[in-house]
Amino acid sequence: MNYDNDNIFAKILRGDIPCFKVFEDEHTLAFMDIMPQAEGHTLVIPKFAAETILDIPADQLIHTMTTVQKVVSALKSTLGVDGVILMQLNGSAAGQSVPHLHFHLIPTHLSNLKRHGSEQGDMDKIKALAEKISAAL
Amino acid sequence: MNYDNDNIFAKILRGDIPCFKVFEDEHTLAFMDIMPQAEGHTLVIPKFAAETILDIPADQLIHTMTTVQKVVSALKSTLGVDGVILMQLNGSAAGQSVPHLHFHLIPTHLSNLKRHGSEQGDMDKIKALAEKISAAL
Repeated sequence: MNYDNDNIFAKILRGDIPCFKVFEDEHTLAFMDIMPQAEGHTLVIPKFAAETILDIPADQLIHTMTTVQKVVSALKSTLGVDGVILMQLNGSAAGQSVPHLHFHLIPTHLSNLKRHGSEQGDMDKIKALAEKISAAL
Repeated sequence: MNYDNDNIFAKILRGDIPCFKVFEDEHTLAFMDIMPQAEGHTLVIPKFAAETILDIPADQLIHTMTTVQKVVSALKSTLGVDGVILMQLNGSAAGQSVPHLHFHLIPTHLSNLKRHGSEQGDMDKIKALAEKISAAL
């Protein structure tokens, strides 16, 4: 693996650039996607330097999945939705745009999913959602 | 959780109906999706009776994720693709059609993804792919 330390999520993990954080623990970070494919679109990433799901050991991956479970639960309770899509793209050949392993959690139906990484959302609205979701975590 | 023991994946796990199996261990099963969204579309499921990602404990989920990693790797090596999409739908409100937790592994780019569960593929071709992927596992 050739992990790029200058990718945008590595910078977010280092605190070099800001994010709308909803959850953080020793091993993981969850924050809002600012190009949401639906309202409440959240990303969960490991702090471990992995580009795809093939680059992370099981003992690290389980921390990420545990945070995924927490965030899915918080999205359902705070947004009042019943369905959450989990999507995780491995490789630019799949459409992965940031080379740090990330799980998209998108509270909507597949048929309503907006295009991946297409346009920036309303930042005030995203900030407010982050606070709401964060409060449930 | 109200797990439905008669869902199609529960029947596959019991051996009541067949599947094109690519991998099986004590905790997980991987088999071909017969309505592939791209060539090589494979499903990974836990043997644990869970409907969504919220219904499975971490120690079971990690077995599933380890099998996911194995299958992603096998898809890349046997099909010669660089990108694999992981998708996992939670709830019928997200588009989940079978109420047993399953991870879709789809070796293609997001922009080439066919519609979810839309039409049955060529069964001979799917069988041949299963044998090829299985041989790498």
